[in-house]
Amino acid sequence: MYIDLNCDMGESFGAWRMGDDERMMAHITSANIACGFHAGDPMVMQKTVRLAVETGVGVGAHPGFPDLVGFGRRNLQTSPGEIKAMMIYQIGALAAFAQAEGARIQHVKPHGALYNMAADNEAVADEVVQAVYSVNPEWILVTQPGCVLAELAERKGLRVAREVFPDRAYLENGRLAPRSMSGAVIHDLDTVKSRIVRLVQEGVMEAITGKSISLQADTLCIHGDTPGAVDLAALIRRELMQNGIVVMPMEGILKGKTPS
Amino acid sequence: MYIDLNCDMGESFGAWRMGDDERMMAHITSANIACGFHAGDPMVMQKTVRLAVETGVGVGAHPGFPDLVGFGRRNLQTSPGEIKAMMIYQIGALAAFAQAEGARIQHVKPHGALYNMAADNEAVADEVVQAVYSVNPEWILVTQPGCVLAELAERKGLRVAREVFPDRAYLENGRLAPRSMSGAVIHDLDTVKSRIVRLVQEGVMEAITGKSISLQADTLCIHGDTPGAVDLAALIRRELMQNGIVVMPMEGILKGKTPS
Amino acid sequence: MYIDLNCDMGESFGAWRMGDDERMMAHITSANIACGFHAGDPMVMQKTVRLAVETGVGVGAHPGFPDLVGFGRRNLQTSPGEIKAMMIYQIGALAAFAQAEGARIQHVKPHGALYNMAADNEAVADEVVQAVYSVNPEWILVTQPGCVLAELAERKGLRVAREVFPDRAYLENGRLAPRSMSGAVIHDLDTVKSRIVRLVQEGVMEAITGKSISLQADTLCIHGDTPGAVDLAALIRRELMQNGIVVMPMEGILKGKTPS
Amino acid sequence: MYIDLNCDMGESFGAWRMGDDERMMAHITSANIACGFHAGDPMVMQKTVRLAVETGVGVGAHPGFPDLVGFGRRNLQTSPGEIKAMMIYQIGALAAFAQAEGARIQHVKPHGALYNMAADNEAVADEVVQAVYSVNPEWILVTQPGCVLAELAERKGLRVAREVFPDRAYLENGRLAPRSMSGAVIHDLDTVKSRIVRLVQEGVMEAITGKSISLQADTLCIHGDTPGAVDLAALIRRELMQNGIVVMPMEGILKGKTPS
Repeated sequence: MYIDLNCDMGESFGAWRMGDDERMMAHITSANIACGFHAGDPMVMQKTVRLAVETGVGVGAHPGFPDLVGFGRRNLQTSPGEIKAMMIYQIGALAAFAQAEGARIQHVKPHGALYNMAADNEAVADEVVQAVYSVNPEWILVTQPGCVLAELAERKGLRVAREVFPDRAYLENGRLAPRSMSGAVIHDLDTVKSRIVRLVQEGVMEAITGKSISLQADTLCIHGDTPGAVDLAALIRRELMQNGIVVMPMEGILKGKTPS
Repeated sequence: MYIDLNCDMGESFGAWRMGDDERMMAHITSANIACGFHAGDPMVMQKTVRLAVETGVGVGAHPGFPDLVGFGRRNLQTSPGEIKAMMIYQIGALAAFAQAEGARIQHVKPHGALYNMAADNEAVADEVVQAVYSVNPEWILVTQPGCVLAELAERKGLRVAREVFPDRAYLENGRLAPRSMSGAVIHDLDTVKSRIVRLVQEGVMEAITGKSISLQADTLCIHGDTPGAVDLAALIRRELMQNGIVVMPMEGILKGKTPS
Repeated sequence: MYIDLNCDMGESFGAWRMGDDERMMAHITSANIACGFHAGDPMVMQKTVRLAVETGVGVGAHPGFPDLVGFGRRNLQTSPGEIKAMMIYQIGALAAFAQAEGARIQHVKPHGALYNMAADNEAVADEVVQAVYSVNPEWILVTQPGCVLAELAERKGLRVAREVFPDRAYLENGRLAPRSMSGAVIHDLDTVKSRIVRLVQEGVMEAITGKSISLQADTLCIHGDTPGAVDLAALIRRELMQNGIVVMPMEGILKGKTPS
Repeated sequence: MYIDLNCDMGESFGAWRMGDDERMMAHITSANIACGFHAGDPMVMQKTVRLAVETGVGVGAHPGFPDLVGFGRRNLQTSPGEIKAMMIYQIGALAAFAQAEGARIQHVKPHGALYNMAADNEAVADEVVQAVYSVNPEWILVTQPGCVLAELAERKGLRVAREVFPDRAYLENGRLAPRSMSGAVIHDLDTVKSRIVRLVQEGVMEAITGKSISLQADTLCIHGDTPGAVDLAALIRRELMQNGIVVMPMEGILKGKTPS
């Protein structure tokens, strides 16, 4: 039994701090590092990559829309090919920091509005897949199981890490329940813990309707920018380990699961 | 007899055009491609890299200060390590576009104020050298012969392409005559042409004082953003070829000159 | 018979030029001056305001989405109140340049995607109206006749200048024919000229279907960033004058038309 | 006995928080509100102006260099007239938010590197004075007593509020002791309190050399972005009031001191 814990990192910008990367890095196994478009600046990126490398955490590029004020959370209308170009730019920048630390990128996870658009919109998903594939087809793409992006990526031959959110409810079709639905966010810690363990051990989760559904997860997304986030991450990690589940970077998970 | 012709490229930004890259690309052998901080955007970078690759022109990263309004021409006070980080970011972004086109970066040339500061300021030069070396020690660094940056780069083991400006006068010590000096810019085309040929064939140039000085050039800088720039580039190239001088990307020049 | 000629101005940015503001300013009567979010920078704004004031051209704020790369032409998802805040910011900046030149703002015209969204989307239109009204209820708002923005603005008590595009075809309901329709852009100069004269003199225009419709115009939009734009502006102005139509800033037009 | 307490405010940006403006606003009498170039965004500016107006705190514009990553703390080389244009832009934006809240700007205080450059560099100081004067000669300019900017401003006819930093040591000439000097920052709270009271009551401060010097203060600068800043502000205010010193916006202070 294996699982990866990923978290958004390097979201400080200039004099502004966000999250507690130093403490969080001890509890996760893969870091999604902001690339300067929605958060992060060159100094922050360098420091975060270094921290991940030193801690043995998988280095991931976390590209987003060019929108600092909106933190990459707002949809942006783009011209054809522009999302691909934006992603190549950001992934390349992060890859160079990894290179300078004697490391390499493990995975790519789009951020915020780009993550959401790519999950549902085929044109956007296609550009995301092309961007990653054209720069390095060995990189893992992180996205939700069953979405358009996952499909296109696998068809292209990219490795996909299927991501589940421990504190979010799911629909019967295996997709996230929208935040507007009552019960979409799970606040009770014991519920979160038991859901995670069952998910990893049995590949089963109780949907928001109460029905048990099949759901495959390679990586769990830990939120880093809420109060208590570090403690929650530590707790989840401990719970997993106490149930005999090994926590490791997604590279190792995918090697174990898919014969490639 | 060999020489490279380099030119700043990809300096358009969004809806704003600068230079005539398509026509210019036919006359030069190395392109210094803006990386988005002082000019260029992801779409422009992608297009310019593609154009260079298709034309057989050497792909170069042209990183600058993060200052669109000032076009990277203004000195910016930085904190220690920041120039290194800025450069890694920009070089990495460009390297990914090259990768996506099945190519690779040939050289790195700092832009504008960064180019000038690095030539004279040891701390800045050191960060520039570290940035290039840490990402890829095979990349060529373009700078003026005899400057601090050239020294530090060679000491570190980087290959240096020595750049001369055809239409600029030089001091007896082999450094550029400042623009404020009378005669610093050479407007007469015949003078420019004869200076270049002598420079490449004999390694000699007449300094602004009239004295002949020794000056080694691997690459000549062609200005791209002035009216008539493309015609001037064509003229210089023709003059060189008519004098039996082979024009080629700097990679080939350095292989010919240094046994590495 | 009176009409205003408005044109987007001050769209250069740093080292990048756009349009020929100096020549164009001689032919128009109201200038929509970019405010730094989609184009323009403080130096360009200052120069453009000064040029307008010296030429007797009405000074207008031309606020847009914060999107230099996309030139403000792309829809941006915003949070409630954000468009209002963006507009107050930009209008205020331009108003200060007018103040520094001993002048004042005559009108406000949203740019690009913001102009289009405000015409159709009631929530956006409401924020645009609030922004202008809260800073100075005397300012004129420029928009298309019959759109949501025009309605909300008039209901609030703002003066509205109804804008018609001389080289664009109209639907029978008086709204612009979308560019995707065949015949949406009128290229024949004689047709453009005769349409304009009839529009101003009779308040009638031939719709794209051939049917004559009633259309009221206070101002005609002249495009500034296409080749030949200045000559076209001169031609239109001459045609209007030869038909006894007085061309003047919209402030004067509105005074003449509405008893306020 | 009167004094103003000013503090930098509105320095959050998008999703990034800085300072605790809501709590701090209760203790100060003048707010220097960031204008979007070094910190602040339109939504933050609007909210901060509103908060100041509701609390009866004087609204001030706090323009800086266009450098979010460097928080406006780095010197930027500018072309002639550019600082004036940058300041007009930012002051105008803030003035519009004040207008929209039914208020007006009380003062202007340059931020960070711009504040420091303007204090010593006559060309910079001249542009700062011109910017403020050209938009509204009634606005108060905040700067250090005895600096070049204070001189130029007074010569031009602008009202100047002389600012003293309670926790900083001063040279015998009445200028700030540079941070590099030992003892430049005063950490002992009792010392800070007694210095302030003496300064306001007697116009005297003990210089870093131990000698008592004459120093006139209209306003004290409270730092907002350090831990415990709000408590320190509360403490200083209480100490002043307990010594019979009235704390009020600088507008009132200047009216009391200068017959204008």
